[in-house]
Amino acid sequence: MNTSTEQITVKKVTTSRLPEVDFDNLVFGSTFSDHMFMCDFKDGAWQDATILPYGNLSISPAAKVFHYGQAVFEGMKAFKDEDGNVFLFRPEENFERINKSSKRMAIPEFPKALFFEALHKLLALDKDWVKGGLGNSLYIRPFAMATQVGVAAAPANEYKFMILMSPVKAYYTGDVKVTIAQKYSRSANGGVGAAKAAGNYGAQFYPTNLAREKGFQQVIWTDADEHKYLEEAGTMNVFFRINDTLITAPTSDRILDGVTRKSVLAIAERDGIETDVRRLTVGELVAAAKDGSLKEIFGSGTAAVISPVSAFGYNDEIFELEKPQDSYSERFKKELMDIQYNRAQDPFGWRYPIA
Amino acid sequence: MNTSTEQITVKKVTTSRLPEVDFDNLVFGSTFSDHMFMCDFKDGAWQDATILPYGNLSISPAAKVFHYGQAVFEGMKAFKDEDGNVFLFRPEENFERINKSSKRMAIPEFPKALFFEALHKLLALDKDWVKGGLGNSLYIRPFAMATQVGVAAAPANEYKFMILMSPVKAYYTGDVKVTIAQKYSRSANGGVGAAKAAGNYGAQFYPTNLAREKGFQQVIWTDADEHKYLEEAGTMNVFFRINDTLITAPTSDRILDGVTRKSVLAIAERDGIETDVRRLTVGELVAAAKDGSLKEIFGSGTAAVISPVSAFGYNDEIFELEKPQDSYSERFKKELMDIQYNRAQDPFGWRYPIA
Ligand SMILES: Cc1ncc(COP(=O)(O)O)c(C=O)c1O
Ligand SMILES: Cc1ncc(COP(=O)(O)O)c(C=O)c1O
Repeated sequence: MNTSTEQITVKKVTTSRLPEVDFDNLVFGSTFSDHMFMCDFKDGAWQDATILPYGNLSISPAAKVFHYGQAVFEGMKAFKDEDGNVFLFRPEENFERINKSSKRMAIPEFPKALFFEALHKLLALDKDWVKGGLGNSLYIRPFAMATQVGVAAAPANEYKFMILMSPVKAYYTGDVKVTIAQKYSRSANGGVGAAKAAGNYGAQFYPTNLAREKGFQQVIWTDADEHKYLEEAGTMNVFFRINDTLITAPTSDRILDGVTRKSVLAIAERDGIETDVRRLTVGELVAAAKDGSLKEIFGSGTAAVISPVSAFGYNDEIFELEKPQDSYSERFKKELMDIQYNRAQDPFGWRYPIA
Repeated sequence: MNTSTEQITVKKVTTSRLPEVDFDNLVFGSTFSDHMFMCDFKDGAWQDATILPYGNLSISPAAKVFHYGQAVFEGMKAFKDEDGNVFLFRPEENFERINKSSKRMAIPEFPKALFFEALHKLLALDKDWVKGGLGNSLYIRPFAMATQVGVAAAPANEYKFMILMSPVKAYYTGDVKVTIAQKYSRSANGGVGAAKAAGNYGAQFYPTNLAREKGFQQVIWTDADEHKYLEEAGTMNVFFRINDTLITAPTSDRILDGVTRKSVLAIAERDGIETDVRRLTVGELVAAAKDGSLKEIFGSGTAAVISPVSAFGYNDEIFELEKPQDSYSERFKKELMDIQYNRAQDPFGWRYPIA
């Protein structure tokens, strides 16, 4: 792997779009920073790594990504501290995960040195797009997709790996109401649920719309066989606090191995909070809600950070949750963000200084 | 719905690429005819229907299709008879299925009159791209995809509906060897397996590559729970002939409701061949292979037509199949193609004259 900085060609914007951006009214993931990274896979190798002004691609309508969803992505964030230093959070995890996703989707893996070099160069150029202040961040979207022309259903021999960056605020603005899946499902044993494969997300839009019509923002997915075990939400892993124990599903080939999830588990263990990584059933959850032992539910994810759940729906019943005094979700959110924004020690070595 | 022909703007090529095409050496789905159809969904309506020269799109790298696989497609074919007339085969089925797929993927449905008008106009323009002769056809690829810019995981509010056309010969050139899925799976209960959703296909590439390395062209997928029931192949439904009974899996939310499959069932019933639409187990299949009652396996699909299976692999055993004298697969292939190429009566009303 080439670690030289010369391998990325840089074409800068002539005028930054930064002054036009209304940072107080950002819609999540719809504004993009001045530059993007692009690298092509052809003739068996990644090549032509380039940083260039964010803008449209010229691409054939017969590119395989449009027809066969051969595409994977990642989601990470850059945070700015009070001195203007910029940090990523555990970026090695995202790097490893995109390659794991790529492998499952028959996409060639991307070189580590080039991935980090691209991030360094992009963030050096677009540092001012990272706003300081708790809750502000620059969302980073690496992705890979099949660009070979052809409508035969077989893996492509040409791909693009790209990185876009988007200034964001919180993903959910209030508490989240969720419904427990009883009919639709997110992934199968032996499927691609553990990968951040593009098609996993599009497939959830319709059932999530149905949930929205009933007043829920998200679905908590259950296993496809029996709808018995609680798995994860659309873009978050899910934690349940029963009495003082923190329960979350084990990862599997159906569940994304979330970076925030594993960070919450590590913080809980450090703080002496009992954790139990096991398959919780819907029956147990409902019983705990009824007998009062269910104290909290929250989601964890890069976009959503820690997202408290204020109610869940099941079998046409709604179970409301009142946030306890010693809220775990608030505690983890604060502890995580303090590390991310360089407001606390970093005992785990999760901060990655970048610009 | 507007049925006027004025609603599609037509921009013709100045010079046809037809003379450059080597029709004897076509790679499936990699050559495209002179024109394509494109229509945009925005502000809540399909608009700007246009036929234009086949060529690249200018599209944002943040378009949702790249990130969330919110895309569906269809596959159909145009056939030319000996007098130069062009026919589609049951195109209403494809029209209905793409809208069914779209619904499951939260994509707005496309108007019927516009779909057929687009096909009529495209085929009038590119009629010479349909080559006569058994086995030659023009493969037609309607598809819809999310074009809205934004990396928030939610349905788009802008889409493109397009139709590409590609001259093809046979999809498989010889007999096909298949392996029975024992680890990976194609779809989940409550998932999107019954839709022609883009991501279903990309998700199969890796396990299909593993099968290829062992000498199989395709995987026969089984249910994700137990890998016990035989379902379908990557781009074909699957039929098993045990003694003289033709068995195929019932469609479900995991299995594509194939047009070729239902045509084979109709022809079999007309011809007095016993059919049994039921869930065949892998155990039954292996037992039938061992006791000699398994006579044939074949796949059915628009691209592959009828594709005889010459062997299947299971548990590291290979079961070879010898084509019987009174081969069902040959018979159905002939009867289907005779209808498609206007060489026989069309008692079912499946031929659709178009150009
Ligand atoms: C399906 C799914 N589960 C969980 C997560 C949370 O993972 P992470 O904490 O790494 O962002 C995400 C988002 O990345 C996701 O898409
Ligand atoms: C998964 C799958 N099964 C079966 C088929 C066969 O369907 P049809 O006969 O309509 O082409 C296809 C191809 O269209 C397919 O993609």
